[in-house]
Amino acid sequence: GGHLASNLGVVELTLALLHCFDLPEDKIVWDVGHQCYSYKLLTGRYDSFSTLRQENGISGFPKAAESCYDSFVSGHASTSVAVAHGLKCAMEQQGNDHFVVAVIGDGSFTGGMAYEGLNNVGKSGKKLIIILNDNEMAISKNEGAFAGYLSVIRSTNNYFKVKNTVKKMVLSLPVAGKPLNDFISGSKTMLKQVIYPSTFFEEFGFTYFGPVDGHSIKSLCDVIEQAKRTDGPSIIHIKTKKGKGYSFAENNPGEFHGVSKFDIATGKPFKLPSSNFSDVFGRELTALAEKDKRICAITAAMEQGTGLQHFSKAFKNKGRFYDVGIAEEFGVTFASAMSAADAVPVFAVYSTFLQRAYDQLIHDAAIEKRHIVLGIDRAGIVGDDGETHQGVFDAAFLSTIPNVTMYAPCNYNELRAMLKCCIDADSGIMAVRYPRGGESVDLSDYKYSGNSFDLISNGGEKLLITYGRTFDAALKAAETAGNTDVLKLNRIIPIDDAAVVKAMEYRNVVFAEEGIKNGGIAMQFAAKLMLNGYKGNVSIRAIEGFVAQSSVESALKKLGLDSGSLAELLNTVE
Amino acid sequence: GGHLASNLGVVELTLALLHCFDLPEDKIVWDVGHQCYSYKLLTGRYDSFSTLRQENGISGFPKAAESCYDSFVSGHASTSVAVAHGLKCAMEQQGNDHFVVAVIGDGSFTGGMAYEGLNNVGKSGKKLIIILNDNEMAISKNEGAFAGYLSVIRSTNNYFKVKNTVKKMVLSLPVAGKPLNDFISGSKTMLKQVIYPSTFFEEFGFTYFGPVDGHSIKSLCDVIEQAKRTDGPSIIHIKTKKGKGYSFAENNPGEFHGVSKFDIATGKPFKLPSSNFSDVFGRELTALAEKDKRICAITAAMEQGTGLQHFSKAFKNKGRFYDVGIAEEFGVTFASAMSAADAVPVFAVYSTFLQRAYDQLIHDAAIEKRHIVLGIDRAGIVGDDGETHQGVFDAAFLSTIPNVTMYAPCNYNELRAMLKCCIDADSGIMAVRYPRGGESVDLSDYKYSGNSFDLISNGGEKLLITYGRTFDAALKAAETAGNTDVLKLNRIIPIDDAAVVKAMEYRNVVFAEEGIKNGGIAMQFAAKLMLNGYKGNVSIRAIEGFVAQSSVESALKKLGLDSGSLAELLNTVE
Repeated sequence: GGHLASNLGVVELTLALLHCFDLPEDKIVWDVGHQCYSYKLLTGRYDSFSTLRQENGISGFPKAAESCYDSFVSGHASTSVAVAHGLKCAMEQQGNDHFVVAVIGDGSFTGGMAYEGLNNVGKSGKKLIIILNDNEMAISKNEGAFAGYLSVIRSTNNYFKVKNTVKKMVLSLPVAGKPLNDFISGSKTMLKQVIYPSTFFEEFGFTYFGPVDGHSIKSLCDVIEQAKRTDGPSIIHIKTKKGKGYSFAENNPGEFHGVSKFDIATGKPFKLPSSNFSDVFGRELTALAEKDKRICAITAAMEQGTGLQHFSKAFKNKGRFYDVGIAEEFGVTFASAMSAADAVPVFAVYSTFLQRAYDQLIHDAAIEKRHIVLGIDRAGIVGDDGETHQGVFDAAFLSTIPNVTMYAPCNYNELRAMLKCCIDADSGIMAVRYPRGGESVDLSDYKYSGNSFDLISNGGEKLLITYGRTFDAALKAAETAGNTDVLKLNRIIPIDDAAVVKAMEYRNVVFAEEGIKNGGIAMQFAAKLMLNGYKGNVSIRAIEGFVAQSSVESALKKLGLDSGSLAELLNTVE
Repeated sequence: GGHLASNLGVVELTLALLHCFDLPEDKIVWDVGHQCYSYKLLTGRYDSFSTLRQENGISGFPKAAESCYDSFVSGHASTSVAVAHGLKCAMEQQGNDHFVVAVIGDGSFTGGMAYEGLNNVGKSGKKLIIILNDNEMAISKNEGAFAGYLSVIRSTNNYFKVKNTVKKMVLSLPVAGKPLNDFISGSKTMLKQVIYPSTFFEEFGFTYFGPVDGHSIKSLCDVIEQAKRTDGPSIIHIKTKKGKGYSFAENNPGEFHGVSKFDIATGKPFKLPSSNFSDVFGRELTALAEKDKRICAITAAMEQGTGLQHFSKAFKNKGRFYDVGIAEEFGVTFASAMSAADAVPVFAVYSTFLQRAYDQLIHDAAIEKRHIVLGIDRAGIVGDDGETHQGVFDAAFLSTIPNVTMYAPCNYNELRAMLKCCIDADSGIMAVRYPRGGESVDLSDYKYSGNSFDLISNGGEKLLITYGRTFDAALKAAETAGNTDVLKLNRIIPIDDAAVVKAMEYRNVVFAEEGIKNGGIAMQFAAKLMLNGYKGNVSIRAIEGFVAQSSVESALKKLGLDSGSLAELLNTVE
């Protein structure tokens, strides 16, 4: 399993890079890092490769702690140019003139940070090599004007031929040739544009090489050597095919972007995916949108991952579905403006990627109380992707923002009902957060009470407070430990004072939170108990520090958030 | 006072917009909003204009609550294209085909969101008009490759003439002219590039008009009418002069970007600025960098505002000073990568703008414990700029991130010492936060103890805990109320357990925080008291909700964070 299609697309590129550069002194920065499997195999991690994305195994992303060949972490998109530029600037300071190379896909190029990178590198004039891996296929179908532009230059195999022919022709003119060429090249007028047309990249100060066949090692090595000899920054535009060499992946790169274990001979996954929160979300939103014309859906290049393919199918032609590219910042501001013109925008986004839009949530949404709906997917522990992708910060950072309401369903029923509450609200940021994967079968019949919290009381003297997926473990822990009631927060932001008052009735309160501890809901609840004059005992079980890759189950157990650990914790409370 | 130079530059543009569009049905979105003063004067706010940026007065930025002519808030840069696109998409859904116009400066164009906007608008093909106000001068001198590119097309007055001449020539060919023109225009090959050169913007699917003299109302109206008749999105590139019409501002647009009250006849401010935290920071960093070659400084287009002009003067030529444009996301990732190559990058940034880099702080800096230093300026209440610019979230959002250390100096001495601590650390995000303006004269002799907290004890039975600038008010309040010790946190992240243990000795603890309450340091401190089994009483005085414009003093008083209010609060505690 893992990120298959993107890795198959860059096998030849990886070989060419290893051939042409002197690693680890030269630095290769892989954007998003989805594409680094061949690279890992060839830089000392062949023997450990079977542990990929497993507990204590090697990471699915570059990780500096893992190898000196991995210069920098990369799990989120569009950072590679900034990273490469930072490495280059610092190395130059120290008189180190080794090469720095960023490898970035066309999908990552839809993120604003990539553009900020071009803007800074281009101006610096430093010798940095950017390889634009154009496979015409980001996670969702690549979106935006830039993609259209790439497809134009991608289709012009003769780009450099044309340009060089004109140049040769000018140079071949007797006497005047050389000075004329110099004049044209140096000219800051449109004359240069007319005679020597240039690409987007050249406008930004890069030497452009391409498009190059990314599956020809010889062509790749040739162009890389040319870039190495070029002064200043250069861009090598290579064309690759996602899933190259594996027919099932070539034909269905979207399905093979990130895969679970599958049968190589048939291309079929060993375990068919069962239902999951994303799919329920996507179907319910589609159903709601049939009845409410104001509803529009937004994704940042995660149509499939967020379950929005159902919505897209129904409403794309009606202008109600928007894939904005890997641009969460844009997504939130765009949604806020739609709301200002009376639409009801629903942005479905992974928790970890929503971190990118913290400022836009404050500035563009919250200040003017815009009514936007957030479907926060992959909230909590996500498993194999590890530190870079855990959705453990959303509750903490969203709770700092005024005019935010957030719900945490424990099952599909609640997700559907809470999504409707979010849509029906009048104003403000309305969020619903749900984990990766499916509901617990033990909770599937649980009905939404419609209250901001539910108390499951057996007349216990201890109270275990929790929300979302952890409710399942909490119920089991309470049963095992005995003498324990469970308070389930349905609405986690803002914390309902009535829930605090209810908790005051217990002499011992334990809070279990699948989220970061500092500034999280548990700490805020504890502070509210304190402010209300509570004199009992409080314990918090929440997440401290970053969480490494492993199965979700294993991570939750290590974090003490499984039913067994919570029961033990309850037993330590007098 | 206010944002003078940028507003003087767009007087003619404002008149042209009001002449050509049907407001408020058509929508004008001003990026950053620095430029909306003439617009406000002419859209019903002439009489109230003398209250600009004052308490209960009109805002220095567009604000939907203030007028139906202000379609959306804008205090942070680069959002206008996303906002305009959102308005347009929602309006179209409702069958409303009124015009939407975004006015964006060249400075705001250095931010990635502007590019994400172009990418989405270009692809949509929707009829949106973007006016690029190119005054060759953002807050700092405009930085980056894009600026260089603009200056090229800016210098080519004949851009459209050239293009149209070629086109006319082709069209005038007998018989073949029309088909040939159609063939070339529709062609997806470099032929089009050679024959009909295009700009960056046209690559993205925009019709480009420009460059146009932004001080000629007639030219502006002509080109706007042309854009209105054009199908699909268009960009009007206008050239303006910042400070136009006021010689002092024309000659020194940087100084007149944001000004306090000044004498119109002489251009001199009524009150000469005294010393301030920014200046102390910039000077101290420069002194430290003289001795430590690893130190580099980074700003996101705020060289003057952050006091880095001293550093820039000394080290720009040595490649140790970087102005990355309005691109805080890039700034943090760039700094993290510099650290990976053994530099010590110091990013000086306003608290409110650091919100933009929350994800980069987590993903690129904290996960691999990169040693970057943040100089967080304008922390706390900033005054006249109001809701969009208050620096009240940083303590809360930074505390959610592992591997962050943050100091809060109360005066210049402490700022210098704490900055040195940040630089001397081995790893992690090391931050120091300080307010806008200067130190309290009453605190100027206070020496840094070097401890994570100081206890100022008079044997009181109550404890008032605070940090940063509020220490001054806290000391005074304690004296007024009597029977009160003061605990001053020097390091606010992470909270020192020893400080919590010390606070346990008091039966009454009051926390005063010039920052957001939910998830803030006070709440976390209270939670820690609770977890430690504290049985006393706790009160928190912190900020809830957004804080409107007013003087800093008035805002602090309203928030109950002045010495008088804190003394009253202490008196209510038994």
